[in-house]
Amino acid sequence: MQLTTIREIFRNREKYLDKEVCVGGWVRSIRDSKTFGFIVLNDGTFFDTLQVVYHDEMENFAEVSRMNVGAAIIVKGTLVPTPAAKQPFEIQATEISVEGASAPDYPLQKKRHSMEYLRTISHLRPRTNTFQAVFRVRSLIAYAIHKFFQERDFVYVHTPLITGSDCEGAGEMFQVTTMDLANIPMTEDGKVDFSQDFFHKATNLTVSGQLNGETYAQAFRNIYTFGPTFRAENSNTTRHAAEFWMIEPEIAFADLKDDMMLAESMLKYIIRYVLEHAPQEMNFFHSFIDKGLLERLDNVVNSDFAHVTYTEAIDILSKNNDKFEYKVSWGCDLQTEHERYLTEEVFKRPVFVTDYPKEIKAFYMKLNEDGKTVAAVDCLVPGIGEIIGGSQREDDYEKLVKRMEELGLDREDYDFYLDLRKYGSTRHAGFGLGFERCVMYLTGMSNIRDVIPFPRTVNNCEL
Amino acid sequence: MQLTTIREIFRNREKYLDKEVCVGGWVRSIRDSKTFGFIVLNDGTFFDTLQVVYHDEMENFAEVSRMNVGAAIIVKGTLVPTPAAKQPFEIQATEISVEGASAPDYPLQKKRHSMEYLRTISHLRPRTNTFQAVFRVRSLIAYAIHKFFQERDFVYVHTPLITGSDCEGAGEMFQVTTMDLANIPMTEDGKVDFSQDFFHKATNLTVSGQLNGETYAQAFRNIYTFGPTFRAENSNTTRHAAEFWMIEPEIAFADLKDDMMLAESMLKYIIRYVLEHAPQEMNFFHSFIDKGLLERLDNVVNSDFAHVTYTEAIDILSKNNDKFEYKVSWGCDLQTEHERYLTEEVFKRPVFVTDYPKEIKAFYMKLNEDGKTVAAVDCLVPGIGEIIGGSQREDDYEKLVKRMEELGLDREDYDFYLDLRKYGSTRHAGFGLGFERCVMYLTGMSNIRDVIPFPRTVNNCEL
Repeated sequence: MQLTTIREIFRNREKYLDKEVCVGGWVRSIRDSKTFGFIVLNDGTFFDTLQVVYHDEMENFAEVSRMNVGAAIIVKGTLVPTPAAKQPFEIQATEISVEGASAPDYPLQKKRHSMEYLRTISHLRPRTNTFQAVFRVRSLIAYAIHKFFQERDFVYVHTPLITGSDCEGAGEMFQVTTMDLANIPMTEDGKVDFSQDFFHKATNLTVSGQLNGETYAQAFRNIYTFGPTFRAENSNTTRHAAEFWMIEPEIAFADLKDDMMLAESMLKYIIRYVLEHAPQEMNFFHSFIDKGLLERLDNVVNSDFAHVTYTEAIDILSKNNDKFEYKVSWGCDLQTEHERYLTEEVFKRPVFVTDYPKEIKAFYMKLNEDGKTVAAVDCLVPGIGEIIGGSQREDDYEKLVKRMEELGLDREDYDFYLDLRKYGSTRHAGFGLGFERCVMYLTGMSNIRDVIPFPRTVNNCEL
Repeated sequence: MQLTTIREIFRNREKYLDKEVCVGGWVRSIRDSKTFGFIVLNDGTFFDTLQVVYHDEMENFAEVSRMNVGAAIIVKGTLVPTPAAKQPFEIQATEISVEGASAPDYPLQKKRHSMEYLRTISHLRPRTNTFQAVFRVRSLIAYAIHKFFQERDFVYVHTPLITGSDCEGAGEMFQVTTMDLANIPMTEDGKVDFSQDFFHKATNLTVSGQLNGETYAQAFRNIYTFGPTFRAENSNTTRHAAEFWMIEPEIAFADLKDDMMLAESMLKYIIRYVLEHAPQEMNFFHSFIDKGLLERLDNVVNSDFAHVTYTEAIDILSKNNDKFEYKVSWGCDLQTEHERYLTEEVFKRPVFVTDYPKEIKAFYMKLNEDGKTVAAVDCLVPGIGEIIGGSQREDDYEKLVKRMEELGLDREDYDFYLDLRKYGSTRHAGFGLGFERCVMYLTGMSNIRDVIPFPRTVNNCEL
């Protein structure tokens, strides 16, 4: 008999009620008396569990009753409504076969485990309620992002992971090599002889696909990337991972205003999609992980995002400097405490902060007419601070070259990038969304290690 | 005035005919007489171009006429039907503004360029017809894959890129390190001192997410990965890249038959999706890149895939050994020439070859009852050979340990993997689809360098 999923049973219950069904899943809990027993079954396709009732008429009643939590079973029986109970229906089993027993030392007994402990068993933690919810929602967010851009005819571009350049010089990079580390070949003048490496040059793992992405926006007009990026930062915090995923859309014939409109509709789209497709999971987060989560997300979906310039924001913040550990003044970068104050206390909704001093932003951002600020934007959201950073790009060849010279960037490394300003340059803009930060935001999970299946952080690369 | 995309105009032409429209795009060609001129415009959103007619009533008629191929312009005008012409409509321009000129040395003049030459300008080649088609279709295939799995409630899992283990020992790996290559720290006994590296251990770039994926299938039942994988193979061929993307679904409570059904429906789904969403591009490939492409894909969509065991296949092939460079006999691995012979000459449609000798397959594949073969499957398609490789996994703890011992694998490295066979093991299966091979198959492109935006191959890591 064909196996039905528990999701399918919950979704189309009318089709299955009072009929024979067959499901496979894992035992979440089991209790038995002399003549009958109850199994709470989860098959991973749906957050809610299915109750299975079995009786001693069953040939293997004893074997079934001896099962441990975590065992895999296949249950055949009738789905019957249970109007008096908490759950809407249960299976009256006629047959239960044990697909795979669970050894008595199964690490996930029916009790609450700490997040720290669960991190040590990253191969088993997706079997818990919390991580079932986190990783299903992570999957749905990823899909919502693709759906959003594809519905708008954006072209998905796979920018390279291994790179010979360092993009914006952002942070520490991982080196990639096939040379024997115990015996690195050196040139006569005592340098590493990269001509003997796989690519015949020094290579790193990418920190951003943006510059590559821009080349495709100048061909397809609207593109997005969605891929892994890497930072070898020695930061052991709840928000830093060495390997994480980023989404970087890039739009041609578009300015900073278009960029913000895109970011706002994308965020709203993702939230709506997840609320619609994972209501059980979102209720779980709201109840057990982050009280107030649903109101906060609701507020984001239903408000127009606020807009403020960096200069105005500094004005507001500096009047409240007594509230901050780091005091602000014009020219400084905003810390999370300032960002959260702006979005949570001042505007009480998401806010776009625009036009930052050029000194604290990347070389490729478009210089504003004041000559001091650039057309950059950060999107701040309650509960987290910055979730998106973007900018209009400098599309003027001369201005870009000048800025690169000021910063001492080697022009040869950016020939391809300058070409875009030489052959059919357009005003264009883009932004980056850190995928894990987005997952944390939507789930209320507070440690990045708990929204990545197998997190990589300083000193930690397990499984 | 809001810019409309050329795709939108083609899609909803009735809405725009005889109305004023405004489009931004790049000049593909331009020719002018004394009093008027024609521009062929592409905006990257649609394969077909839009013709623009402009007249000398325009103030900047001379400036416009001087434009070079590749210039970015914004055109305002009326969309008028052209029943007598090849194209269905054109814009009678009232205003053309030059967004960005194109320097006279623009490398993409209106002539045919060789693929080899275009590879040297990977930042500009997406502006050509061929690469517009390739990379839009690549994007659509990626989305079709997500859509297929998400519609079936599969959970998308991001398996890690940086890994401390070597999975199946498949091929050469890239090492990842933050140590100073010019000065690698060594231990007293003359080994590399990885305790000083970022992760405090030796790490590599992944060659497969399968083993990690399996852990999630044992929690969510049906999962898939879609991410980059790496091979440091020193192969300079048209089919090898050092960095490529893979899709690896994994299904629990499922055997090899379920696995093949999934693979067959996925392939058919992808092809149907692309034919429906990129008819212009697919016709282009059929006409200019690979004659017969559409018939071949049509055949795949409309046939039931054939099934043959490895042993039967060897029987068929060995009777035709005179046709092959490599002669076959039981126990040998199949070469592309054999695979293509089977699918193109013998079955004339896609074929699943199953039950290979265990010696030529990976340790985790389920041993068949004959003790000699494993429940492996390769899917072969006309024109390419193997496109998918998969297997049912060994779900028996003892058998798996025995096989690992035979092959001298270190059990400690696979503790997590063995745990899956200890705690609620289920029959399960999965397969891997090389994404680039899939793109080559659907587009008829014959060099993997031409289906990856910025390809990484031996000695080549540009941009």
